[in-house]
Amino acid sequence: MQVQVTCPVNIALLKYWGKVDELNIFPLTSSISLTLNQSHVGSRTTVFTKNGLKQSQFKLNGRVTQFPPRLLDVLIIAQLRSRLHGKHIASPFICVETENNFPTAAGLASSASGTAAFGKMYSLDGDYTSFSRRGSGSSCRSLSGGFVLWSSNRGDYLHPSFVQQLFPSSHWPELKVLICVVNEHSKHIGSTDAMLNCVNTSDLFRSGRVLSAKIHEKQAISALRERDFSALAEVTMRESNQLHAVCLDTWPPCVFLNHLSYSIMDFVHRINKYFKKSVVAYTFDAGPNAFLLTESHNIENILKYLVECFGRTVGVGDSMNTTDKFTVQCRDSNKYLKVIGIRYSLSDTPLDQVIFMTI
Amino acid sequence: MQVQVTCPVNIALLKYWGKVDELNIFPLTSSISLTLNQSHVGSRTTVFTKNGLKQSQFKLNGRVTQFPPRLLDVLIIAQLRSRLHGKHIASPFICVETENNFPTAAGLASSASGTAAFGKMYSLDGDYTSFSRRGSGSSCRSLSGGFVLWSSNRGDYLHPSFVQQLFPSSHWPELKVLICVVNEHSKHIGSTDAMLNCVNTSDLFRSGRVLSAKIHEKQAISALRERDFSALAEVTMRESNQLHAVCLDTWPPCVFLNHLSYSIMDFVHRINKYFKKSVVAYTFDAGPNAFLLTESHNIENILKYLVECFGRTVGVGDSMNTTDKFTVQCRDSNKYLKVIGIRYSLSDTPLDQVIFMTI
Repeated sequence: MQVQVTCPVNIALLKYWGKVDELNIFPLTSSISLTLNQSHVGSRTTVFTKNGLKQSQFKLNGRVTQFPPRLLDVLIIAQLRSRLHGKHIASPFICVETENNFPTAAGLASSASGTAAFGKMYSLDGDYTSFSRRGSGSSCRSLSGGFVLWSSNRGDYLHPSFVQQLFPSSHWPELKVLICVVNEHSKHIGSTDAMLNCVNTSDLFRSGRVLSAKIHEKQAISALRERDFSALAEVTMRESNQLHAVCLDTWPPCVFLNHLSYSIMDFVHRINKYFKKSVVAYTFDAGPNAFLLTESHNIENILKYLVECFGRTVGVGDSMNTTDKFTVQCRDSNKYLKVIGIRYSLSDTPLDQVIFMTI
Repeated sequence: MQVQVTCPVNIALLKYWGKVDELNIFPLTSSISLTLNQSHVGSRTTVFTKNGLKQSQFKLNGRVTQFPPRLLDVLIIAQLRSRLHGKHIASPFICVETENNFPTAAGLASSASGTAAFGKMYSLDGDYTSFSRRGSGSSCRSLSGGFVLWSSNRGDYLHPSFVQQLFPSSHWPELKVLICVVNEHSKHIGSTDAMLNCVNTSDLFRSGRVLSAKIHEKQAISALRERDFSALAEVTMRESNQLHAVCLDTWPPCVFLNHLSYSIMDFVHRINKYFKKSVVAYTFDAGPNAFLLTESHNIENILKYLVECFGRTVGVGDSMNTTDKFTVQCRDSNKYLKVIGIRYSLSDTPLDQVIFMTI
């Protein structure tokens, strides 16, 4: 049997950082994300079994690599649940092949397709977010489309966290995301270790983060509901800054942003000051790559200024109207700042794109 | 009458950031500093009156510039106090000339000599720290030698803050400071505005900073008392990181560190990891320049690795034994990283060096 699943990537506006339960991956704070158009940025996972397999195998972008330990946990859970439902499991070992059409280690959550594939593989109906969350916390937000809330509401003991769509993609179609790929290399420290370290050592995290995130959650939901770009821009940038502030307050400090990231932050504040209103916002996850938010009517201007500030476009067109992929050469470092223009959401039901093939 | 005062610079280990009283400059948290050897890093202020002066004049490093508003407040207070003591004030206007033997705007507190000069000028006996504090908060720590505490202890209503020497310089003579001048240009945002903005907008500052600083205060005093370099290194670096974390959490964010600052932080963590113990620590004030702490027996090693990592020494000798000034060229930016080796304290009574001249 072979199962192939494609899944979109999501960009967190309100950040997931810190777990209340390391085993079950329940978040300390709620997070909110935008679901990206998976034809531009997405991952495809193929899962299959074959005779004579002595251990599970994992291939990422064509290269065999170590099977991620947390993905193995998800696999075991999926198989156990399947057995509980009376299904026959031919082999405990499987082959997993994931292809991403973006830099894998550059800070984009990409594990959703893998964990969803397990759910399909073992014929488990219903909510895949619990698998996905265990495989990689933030990936569970990729199983809904549009604007997604992963809530940390722990009123209900049986459901200490849940994922829900706040608004469909059609609610605010003018909202656009530009991904600025600053660095395609692997992160020097993984998010899992970094957030555990942060929760354990950062006084600022312990004393202020949960309360702050609750305030930001209300502000973000209100800004999305009202389609108030200026309010969304502020809460998004403050969330990003706070994430990197508590990382800096971690011991030893976690520094994910590089000088190009800081240049982009500075660029955004200068542009907004110049226009006397927020026309663009940045957000960074646990990596140096910038995700810029803006609205349709400002895209051309933002791209023009990005090119003016960071260099020149290379190889491709110079406007969102002719192409949606840009490479901007950064003037001060001889590095390329790739700017990929994408629509933030293709579909409100990304799992409709699951392809089943039985061989 | 002419008064000339020289004063040392101090380096904060525990940071002063945020005021409980903007008018009287009482700090929200205690701070602790090392008093530097003023023959290497210090400021000299000459204050005099002359006939026909229509307004007060201020000259910094030979250039006439705007009279700092807070220094003007100090001047008025000094004159008023002098009058209260029955002294005759010939003219309300004076000339102030300050010379620093280091980059003025590079984040080193330099105002102590100016405010102390006013005290001498107007024959005010006793504690000059109240003048100095009003001129520039952190400068009040420069009026004591050795290891200095500016306490925010507000048990006594009449003395909501006070400055005291914790230990004389002889307590830990092996402790050394290396100043790495990353950028000699003016700061793009002043400390006064930045800290006010931080207190007003950073949730992390409001919820966690005061408590954290109290814990760090105990740790720093204990580390100094025991001459425990490893403990001092950790609390010093955590304080520095926390200062820049709350600055990043400020809205709009205050970013004082540049990529060379982050490189130096990374360098320090790598060196300490390599030696499997803390042999060097960094601290940054509201600017990009690094202050490295180390002990005598590690200086040569640290300098060797600094040169290996950041480039080559330029113009001067290559060891603390032959010279105490270095310029290290930074490999990746074609900029010079000036490393100035200094003893942290010449004297426990820096104001003994006041020179009086009556003309």
